[in-house]
Amino acid sequence: MTRPAIQTVDVPLGERAYQIHIGGGLLARAAEWVAPVLRGREIFLAVDANAMEPHGRTLAEALRPLGRVEIAIIPPGEESKCVAQLDALWDRLSGARFGRNAAVVAVGGGVTGDLVGFAAASYLRGVDFIQVPTTLLAMVDSSVGGKTGINNRHGKNLLGAFWQPRLVLADTDTLATLPMGERIAALAEIIKYGVIYDAELFRWLEANIAALRDLQPAAIAHAVRRSCAIKADVVTQDERESGLRQILNFGHTVGHAIENVAGYGTLRHGEAIAVGMIVESALGLGHGPAWTTAEHQRLVALIAAAGLPTMLPAGLDLTLPQLFAAASSDKKNRGTGTKYIVPRALGTVEAVTIADDVVAPLLLAAGAKP
Amino acid sequence: MTRPAIQTVDVPLGERAYQIHIGGGLLARAAEWVAPVLRGREIFLAVDANAMEPHGRTLAEALRPLGRVEIAIIPPGEESKCVAQLDALWDRLSGARFGRNAAVVAVGGGVTGDLVGFAAASYLRGVDFIQVPTTLLAMVDSSVGGKTGINNRHGKNLLGAFWQPRLVLADTDTLATLPMGERIAALAEIIKYGVIYDAELFRWLEANIAALRDLQPAAIAHAVRRSCAIKADVVTQDERESGLRQILNFGHTVGHAIENVAGYGTLRHGEAIAVGMIVESALGLGHGPAWTTAEHQRLVALIAAAGLPTMLPAGLDLTLPQLFAAASSDKKNRGTGTKYIVPRALGTVEAVTIADDVVAPLLLAAGAKP
Repeated sequence: MTRPAIQTVDVPLGERAYQIHIGGGLLARAAEWVAPVLRGREIFLAVDANAMEPHGRTLAEALRPLGRVEIAIIPPGEESKCVAQLDALWDRLSGARFGRNAAVVAVGGGVTGDLVGFAAASYLRGVDFIQVPTTLLAMVDSSVGGKTGINNRHGKNLLGAFWQPRLVLADTDTLATLPMGERIAALAEIIKYGVIYDAELFRWLEANIAALRDLQPAAIAHAVRRSCAIKADVVTQDERESGLRQILNFGHTVGHAIENVAGYGTLRHGEAIAVGMIVESALGLGHGPAWTTAEHQRLVALIAAAGLPTMLPAGLDLTLPQLFAAASSDKKNRGTGTKYIVPRALGTVEAVTIADDVVAPLLLAAGAKP
Repeated sequence: MTRPAIQTVDVPLGERAYQIHIGGGLLARAAEWVAPVLRGREIFLAVDANAMEPHGRTLAEALRPLGRVEIAIIPPGEESKCVAQLDALWDRLSGARFGRNAAVVAVGGGVTGDLVGFAAASYLRGVDFIQVPTTLLAMVDSSVGGKTGINNRHGKNLLGAFWQPRLVLADTDTLATLPMGERIAALAEIIKYGVIYDAELFRWLEANIAALRDLQPAAIAHAVRRSCAIKADVVTQDERESGLRQILNFGHTVGHAIENVAGYGTLRHGEAIAVGMIVESALGLGHGPAWTTAEHQRLVALIAAAGLPTMLPAGLDLTLPQLFAAASSDKKNRGTGTKYIVPRALGTVEAVTIADDVVAPLLLAAGAKP
């Protein structure tokens, strides 16, 4: 199998513009891309414990010729997105006397990127940040767009900053060891991009979903590149989420409510979003000729073909009152009623506020309890 | 005594532009200025415990017609600029389910403004922030410019964000209860503005320093307005401190080193800065016709007339190696050699890197030990 060429996506955010490089074997060659953006000779690698061998080590060795490299290990799991881990990173950075020209590099999945990105945003009021996502979900979603943050006992991502990376290196070779369940869950976000922004990507996914599940390099590279390009396009138009950016939330109002009520970690994020997309897709039916039962059924079929759930798993008893309470307290809905992103056509969505009694039967159909 | 009219300084930072209002009796009328900038109906007042009665209460009552007002009390003192207090504010904000349209208001001195400003910058990735400084130092310095932050065991202000307020309300009536020592210490920063930017302000201070010490309202209002206007001017040209803004650091390389070695709180910030200005002023001698011993002596005389120290207090044994180690590890000097801001003329300064052996005799003359 020939290895596809390295592909680059530009994120044209003015003075915060950056590039995303996608392909195999990037880590060992990382200095090629890091050197041009490095302001000083100080590099702080914060690495998910599960990504340290071999990825963290490969990257550390590749970057050592550029200057001092310190390594911090982040415990895996969502629990690490907490103030204690943030404080530990602050302590490591300041104890090792990193200066304003330092570059902080996150190596791992979304948890690592979100936590370490917030540390970079706030250390010395902001130092350079580089994302090295090693999961498919992080490559197509959290590593692009500049959202960083941690959780507290009142909710997810309540504390953080908008802080754009200076560079994203998505080495698709790191996906080889990713468990099948994680690969599949990430497909939910890729399918989302097709629905919200790119009918052509949606059709490509219908034809290539098996190749993606099998991690065929050319298919993975294409899906990651298109996903990053779409997210970059949306983020460029609305960096701080005051309007357009909310379309990225398709499937997430319901999906977050499911995760919240079920307890984070009960389902994978992508699994909850898959069910959420089906509910929110149905909310878009009956409002025009371009999103009909036929399009809705194609989405359900694609989700199923990806290996994602189309309903809540049996035995998971989530009630309507629980789900509505969670949806209305979602960060993005605080004080604004419950907003959903619904399709108008393949590649076009719209934000609408919808009453609970309209949503209820769809949640019941998806397996929620009364 | 007639009360001077309320004065306004514009800080023209593009889409982050804001106004500073200065005068007596502003707190009771705060709704006039807060209402136009408020996005929602949620107000979170974080108040220094010492400022709660009567200032916090007056403000809360003035703002209650605009919406829900929650009050958090901040323990007084520099120790409150810590991750535990930040986390407590995050917990209060999220526990009370404040949304993205909330306004967070800091009432107190620099400690409160820095801590609460960072909480506002990071809650939900940033909500609106209003500064209500109740000390002279906060009015002329920390409430303007958008620097927020907390300390950790490795240093001061190492963690934080650039986050501009939407509004600053400097009610000069709140200064009536300010202890004489605090008033005097704040004069150091006002004198600094004269040296670095405004020869006319310097001459005005030479003529009016006694009126300022006595808190004569017209004198206070003039000094606060000019100081805010100068700081706003500098910050507008260099919001994120990549160049010009460092001139605000005149007196602070040595001053911070003194505070750091003596232990924070041993001297007031303004007292350390006064001694620092004298040392750094002397570093500017001999480099041109416009900063001569005559100008240096005028600065020393003005500092003395303000009631500020011109030397380290007897009994405070700070050694040269301690001071140089602290100066070179200052956040702004990390990895760049030791930089000082030195005068070139009254109203003009320049950043220069100077070797320790040139600085040593001046520190000894100021009372340091070998």
